[in-house]
Formats: sequence, structure tokens, C-alpha cells
Amino acid sequence: MNIRMVANTLGKVLLAEAALLLLPLTAALWYRESVLPFLFTILLLLPAGLGLAALRPSSSELFAREGFVCVGLSWILMSLFGCLPFLFSGDIPRFADAFFETVSGFTTTGASILENPEVLSRGCMFWRLFTHWIGGMGVLVFIAAVLPVSGDSYIHIMRAEVPGPTVSKLVPRVRKTARILYLIYLVLTVAECVLLLLGGLSFYEALLHSFATAGTGGFSTRAASIGAFQSVYIEMVIAVFMLLFGCNFNLFYFILIGQTAAAFRSEELRVYLGIIAGAVLLITVNIRALCGGLLGGLRYAFFQVMTILSTTGFSTCDFNEWPELSRWILVLLMLIGGCAGSTGGGMKVSRIIILLKSCTAELRRMIMPSRVKRIWFEGRTVGDRTVQNVHVFFFLYLLAAAAGVLLLSLDGRDVATNLTASVACISNVGPGLSAVGPSSNYSFFSPLSKLFLCFEMLLGRLEIFPMLFLFAPGVWKRH
Amino acid sequence: MNIRMVANTLGKVLLAEAALLLLPLTAALWYRESVLPFLFTILLLLPAGLGLAALRPSSSELFAREGFVCVGLSWILMSLFGCLPFLFSGDIPRFADAFFETVSGFTTTGASILENPEVLSRGCMFWRLFTHWIGGMGVLVFIAAVLPVSGDSYIHIMRAEVPGPTVSKLVPRVRKTARILYLIYLVLTVAECVLLLLGGLSFYEALLHSFATAGTGGFSTRAASIGAFQSVYIEMVIAVFMLLFGCNFNLFYFILIGQTAAAFRSEELRVYLGIIAGAVLLITVNIRALCGGLLGGLRYAFFQVMTILSTTGFSTCDFNEWPELSRWILVLLMLIGGCAGSTGGGMKVSRIIILLKSCTAELRRMIMPSRVKRIWFEGRTVGDRTVQNVHVFFFLYLLAAAAGVLLLSLDGRDVATNLTASVACISNVGPGLSAVGPSSNYSFFSPLSKLFLCFEMLLGRLEIFPMLFLFAPGVWKRH
Repeated sequence: MNIRMVANTLGKVLLAEAALLLLPLTAALWYRESVLPFLFTILLLLPAGLGLAALRPSSSELFAREGFVCVGLSWILMSLFGCLPFLFSGDIPRFADAFFETVSGFTTTGASILENPEVLSRGCMFWRLFTHWIGGMGVLVFIAAVLPVSGDSYIHIMRAEVPGPTVSKLVPRVRKTARILYLIYLVLTVAECVLLLLGGLSFYEALLHSFATAGTGGFSTRAASIGAFQSVYIEMVIAVFMLLFGCNFNLFYFILIGQTAAAFRSEELRVYLGIIAGAVLLITVNIRALCGGLLGGLRYAFFQVMTILSTTGFSTCDFNEWPELSRWILVLLMLIGGCAGSTGGGMKVSRIIILLKSCTAELRRMIMPSRVKRIWFEGRTVGDRTVQNVHVFFFLYLLAAAAGVLLLSLDGRDVATNLTASVACISNVGPGLSAVGPSSNYSFFSPLSKLFLCFEMLLGRLEIFPMLFLFAPGVWKRH
Repeated sequence: MNIRMVANTLGKVLLAEAALLLLPLTAALWYRESVLPFLFTILLLLPAGLGLAALRPSSSELFAREGFVCVGLSWILMSLFGCLPFLFSGDIPRFADAFFETVSGFTTTGASILENPEVLSRGCMFWRLFTHWIGGMGVLVFIAAVLPVSGDSYIHIMRAEVPGPTVSKLVPRVRKTARILYLIYLVLTVAECVLLLLGGLSFYEALLHSFATAGTGGFSTRAASIGAFQSVYIEMVIAVFMLLFGCNFNLFYFILIGQTAAAFRSEELRVYLGIIAGAVLLITVNIRALCGGLLGGLRYAFFQVMTILSTTGFSTCDFNEWPELSRWILVLLMLIGGCAGSTGGGMKVSRIIILLKSCTAELRRMIMPSRVKRIWFEGRTVGDRTVQNVHVFFFLYLLAAAAGVLLLSLDGRDVATNLTASVACISNVGPGLSAVGPSSNYSFFSPLSKLFLCFEMLLGRLEIFPMLFLFAPGVWKRH
């Protein structure tokens, strides 16, 4: 383990966080609120970050395990410092709550412990929704984009932070890949913000909701979430952008360099759109009586399917009141999640495709053992190692969710609450059903449950392995 | 596809069923009830069985796909004919209900549509509980034991019917293996029956409950199940036999031939006992207040853990009223199930072990890609193909359970009912939580839901693949 290189990277992460805190500080200044919560946090981050970054590694080489450890530790440290403004301002006085809200923000979950978010100061609200934007694309990708990163072994860090079963560089150099990703991310966020401004939102609310959509987070400035705006236009703009942010960003790059046809040939995109169409259709028919006919049903179904499948977690209505079939479809969508290489959570559409294809391959092999059947995905064969990794991911994902359910059940809530709270956190969705439905929040859970849910949110955002490796003694041994 | 060979085997299955129906017929005769329901069924089975068995295949060779198809079709046909006594006698007048009850019997699920089983005639009750015994070890294994089966390619049929990720012959010849298995099965059943007689049960009830325990079925002659006897002795005898019938029968064979040490070195056995100990401990502590202290808690916890883990489904109390933690532990135990090569259902302990071991192997590989790490289980390495098969099984099992939940949700019951009904049926347990708890039954589901639950029970008992292959066009092609 190249400890010095890990420490050096962690230092950069903390310095980046200090820099990013200047934005909510500016917002606090603008709205004539106290800037001290942000100033104090920055003053704590600077020496810690500079101290760690001062450690010069003898070799800048990184391997897979350093990548996992860097990412795992970065996200924990970032959340520990990130919750300080909430504590310093007194907006969220208890540590377990402030940490939960911050982890929920960075992991783009959007599960909240706030009874009424509207009481937050504007500076803290800005920071709360800005964490979604930071966490969506990832802070280590951000660092790769803005700081000189040493050597192409930084790809191991990118791989550990960017979601999906396999990560390919768009261009040969890591730094340029990171810049392209952030550029696409920024342009889409600005585009959404402009469209929301045209819909009549204030700049503050348009910007913050664009942050929350871009990261597929789901926090809102309003207690009633997007439903508060009572505008079909706002709902549709946000729903379409949730759909876009749930897509693999490689597709936007292909469109950017003129290979539009290649982008639309993507199997994952087609299945993603197919899932959306199927789920919207079923739910529309199922809820039509509740929403005044098919058109009303379509409006709520499309928004809610997009918000759950992209794992954003906004709401325009209380889908906890929907019929059982629709509720269960939403729970399954939570587990599926967005596309690989998107800002969405869940298991990712590409993994589901690989799982299904490996099933048909296995069934074929069982009746015709002599014929070797390769799995094709996106025009390439998928190696046995990748298939195995996807299956292991699936098992560990559900195992972690089950562990969460058991722990939450100690708090005594009903089956639907425990099940969907655990699934909604590991899939980075936010709202679930029953007591954690869209009109409720996570405040009633015990501190222990909240801590485990934080762990689940980090497991989900970092796709299991980086968090698990922190607990594996073998990882910490010297090379 | 060797169609004639499949038809010939199906014919033998129907003839075997006709022979087995002589037992409930005798019971009806003994209790001076009408024998006509059984006689009519036998008279329908004989020409069908003889007709099919008369088809002489040109080659007796069987391949894996014939094995799957034979088993899948046998179980469906056997259930279709098996429900006739209930219909003919009028004890269960509707087809969907009679078929559900019969599939539930043969698959050793024990989910019932009867409001009060005590109203059944004694002959039908005998048949109802006897189906558990037939289904526990499997009718095709029975045929191998009693009829001359042609050639050792019959092992493909055994593999498709006997549970577990891999099936090994105890002795070189299939027929002798089948005889040993049935002999152990018979001896254990008789032993339990004798112990229950000593506990004061009538011969009728002792025998029928021994059938239901041996097959890990769960039907009872009493509406209150085993709780009706109000006897710690009866409860403990049944609990211990449920533990035994949840073990791999190979272990009993090893003990029989004097290799006791080898039997107890089994990893699966140790994990199985470990799961029991852990679950009993947690539940005892969790329910002690409800059951008048730790000792009372232990009594109910041990019985209920054994009944759920072995996927029998008897009950001595309404565990639906237990605290959330205990309820969820039971749901997870349902999914785990018994050992491979037992009469229990669920995914099987050995599969869970292989899944967990493949996870640690994958984690090791991710940080040290150069080192090849083999998985060891029961003193042997597990091939990549077996690991892949187990992962595919895990995915398909949960996919089928999820499909069941979606379909059941159309009937509008709550989350806990839909979830646990689907899990309890695919795992061949029987009772679940909420509306399908131990004090309730499955009668309220729509005929469509009942039919799908039958499909799930068959999927679970035959371990997914034989049922799926019936729908795969490729299987039916000529060689």
C-alpha cells in the first residue's frame, strides 16, 4: 500500500472541498447571513488538507487497491468535514443527523432527517443541495479535471468512483476524460437552470434544483418537493433532465463528437428507455382512477418513474398512497437504477442486462454443454471475469440491503418501512414507502440505524467494493 | 429430444402415482369412507400411464435436457391427477384450490387454501399429507428405486429432481443410490412415527405428521398445526426431525457405513447448525418478553427456526405477532432453506456458502489480479462453471420471487403479505407474514395468483431449471 500517495490524494480532496465551500459562503454573504459556519469549516479543512497534501510520495504509482482505498476514505472524510456547516450554524444540531444529511447529499441519495427543510438558512440550503452536484460526478473526478494528477495510474481512482461494471477512458489521457465529463455535466446543469428560470423559478431555486437533478440527488428547498411548484412545465423539464442524467455520459460525448448514430445504438440506452416506457405504461393504467384519467396518470407516472429510476427522489405526489402494484414497481426500479457512467444510483441497467444475458447463456450451456456461448454487450464480448464480478456485486448489494433491513427492524417499524428504507438508501434514491414515504423523513430512526444507513448510502454510491476494502486487512499490507 | 423416452418415463410416473393412491384408498376403507374418489382417480391414471409407458423408445439414452423435461412434466402431470380425489370427493370443490393444495403438497410447501383442514375426510387428509412424503424425496427417485430403470443415464433425471448445486451418486449405480436414499428416508420416518406414538398421538396423526415432517412439508391434520397438541415433547421430537430432514442425506449414508467423522466434517452441516444456533439465540432474546422468559422463548424460537429453515412450515404459535427483527430473521431463513440433498427447500445452505466464498475470492482477485484463487468446498475445489451456475440460480430465484410479488400485488394486499407469500411459496415453506401468517391461509388470492404461486412452488422444489426449460424452444428440438 502506497500510504503516502493515498494521504497526498486525500489532502487534495480536502483542499478541493475547502474551495467548493466558497460557493455556499458567497450565498450566505449575498443573503446577509452569517458566513462563520463556512469560514470555520474552511479554516479546519485547510491545515488538514495542506498537511496531508504535503506528504510527497516516493512513487506516484497507484494500483487498484490504492484506488479503492483513496475513494473510500475520501468520501468518509469529505462527509465528516461536510457536515460541520450544519452543526456550526445550529441548523442541524445533532451530529448523527448532520452526518446523515451530508452523506445523503454527497451520495446523491436525498434522504433527509429534516421535518421541514424550509427552515434552513439559505447558505446551508445552498450547501445541502450543492453536495448533490459534487457527489454526482465525484470529487476525485473533479480533482482529476482541475489539478495536475500524476500519471495515468489515476485511472484506478476514476474506476473506483465512476459507476458501472467497466469504465473506459473516453480519450487516452485520464485528465482530459475527466474534463470532458465535467464539461458535459456543467453544460447540462446550466441548460436545466435556464429552462427552470424560463418556467418562473427564482435564480436561487432554479440553480439549486438543477444541482439536485444533475447529481440525481433529490433534496429540495421545498417541503413538498417539486410538487410545491404546481407546474406541469417545471415537472416535465425536471423529469426530462432526470432521464438525461440517468444516461451514460459517454453517449453525450459521442453526440458531441458527431457520432450520434453510435450513441443511439447503445443497448443500455435502449433497455433504459424500454424500462421507462414499460413502467410508465403500467403505472399510468394502475393509477388513472386516482389522477383523474389517463392523462393525469401519465403526468404523475412519468415524473415518478424518472425520479425513482434515475434514483433522484423528488416527488410531485405521495406515491405511498398508490396501489400496491405501482408501489412495488417503484421498489424494483430503485434496485435497477440508472445507466453505468451516469450520476444515478442503483445496480445500473448495464449490470441487469449482463445478469440476464448470463442467465440465458447458462441455460443454453446446461442443455448443450459442448457449445461455448459468449456474452455480447454493446458490440463486444463480456469476459467471464466481468460476468463473475457483476454477479458478486448483485449478491453483495442484496446482502447489504438485507443486513440493513435486519438492523432497522430493531427500531420496530413495519415491514414496508424497513425494506424500502434500506433499499432506498443503498440505491441512493431517498424516499421509500410507508414511514419513509415521500411525505415523511428519516428523523425517527435511532442514531445506530442512521449510521448504518450512511454506510449503505456510501456502499451504494461507490458500488460496494471501495467501502468493503477499507475493512479488508489484506488491502493495507505493503506491496 | 428423445420424446419416446420422456413419454415412457411419464407413463411410469403415472403408474407409480396410481400405486401410491392405494394407501389413501386403504385409509378410506378403514375409516368406512367412500373409496370412489381414489378409485376413479386410479382408473384414470391406469390407461394414461399404461398408454404412455407402452411407447418403447428406440434408444434408452437420456441427456441433461431430457432429464429436465421429464422432471418438469412429471411434476405437473402428477399434480393434475393428484388433485382429482379432492375434487371427486367434494372436499375441495374448486379446481384452482384443489390444484393449489396438491402442488403445495407435492412440492412440500404446505401452503393451504383450507380455512379449516379438520373438515376433510380422513382419506383425503391422508392423501394430502402423504403427498408431502412422495414429493420430499421425489417420485422419479422413487421410480429409480422400485422399477428397473434403463441405464445409468437416468442420473440426469435424478440430478434434475434432487436439490443442490451438484449431485453425486453415493454408489456407482443409480438404482442402488436411489434405494439407499429411500431406505434412509423410510427408516427416519418410521422412527419419528414411533416417537410421536410414545408421545400419545394416535397412529393416524403420528403417521401423517411423520409424512409431513419427512418431506418438510408442513400440512397438519389440525387447524392450529402442532400447537394443537400443547406438548413440549411432541414439539421437540418434531423440531429435531425437521433438523434431520433438513440435512444432506449423504451424511446419514456416511454414518450408516461407519464414516461418522467424515459426516461431521461437512462444511455445509456446520454452517447449517451455525445458522440454527445464531437464529435461535437472536430470536430467543428478541421474543423472551412475549413467551414468559428465556426458556419459553427458547422453546418457541427453536421450533420456529427449525420449521422455517427446513422449510416445513408447521407452527406452534403465531410468529406473525413477533417483533420485527424475529419476523425478518424468519424471512431470511426461508430464502436460505435446508442443505443440498435434503428434503428441504429454499436456496440451500451449500449455495449460500458457495456464493459467500465466491465473493471473498472476487475481492481478493480485485486487489491482487495476478494471483488465481480457487474456491474450496467440502474438501474439493469448486469449478468456475458451478460457481457461475449458483450465481445464475440466485439471480433467477429472486427474479421469480419478484415477479410473484408484482403479480400478487394486483390482489391489493399489503407489502408484507405479497412479499412473504411469494418467498414462502418459492422456498416451499408455506406460511408467511401478515395475511398469509401461520394463523391464516391462501384462500383469498385470485385464481391467477394461485396459479402463479403453484408455478413458484414448482420452480422452488425443482430448483428453477426444469420448469424454465419447459418454456425454452431450443430444448424441444431434435438432437
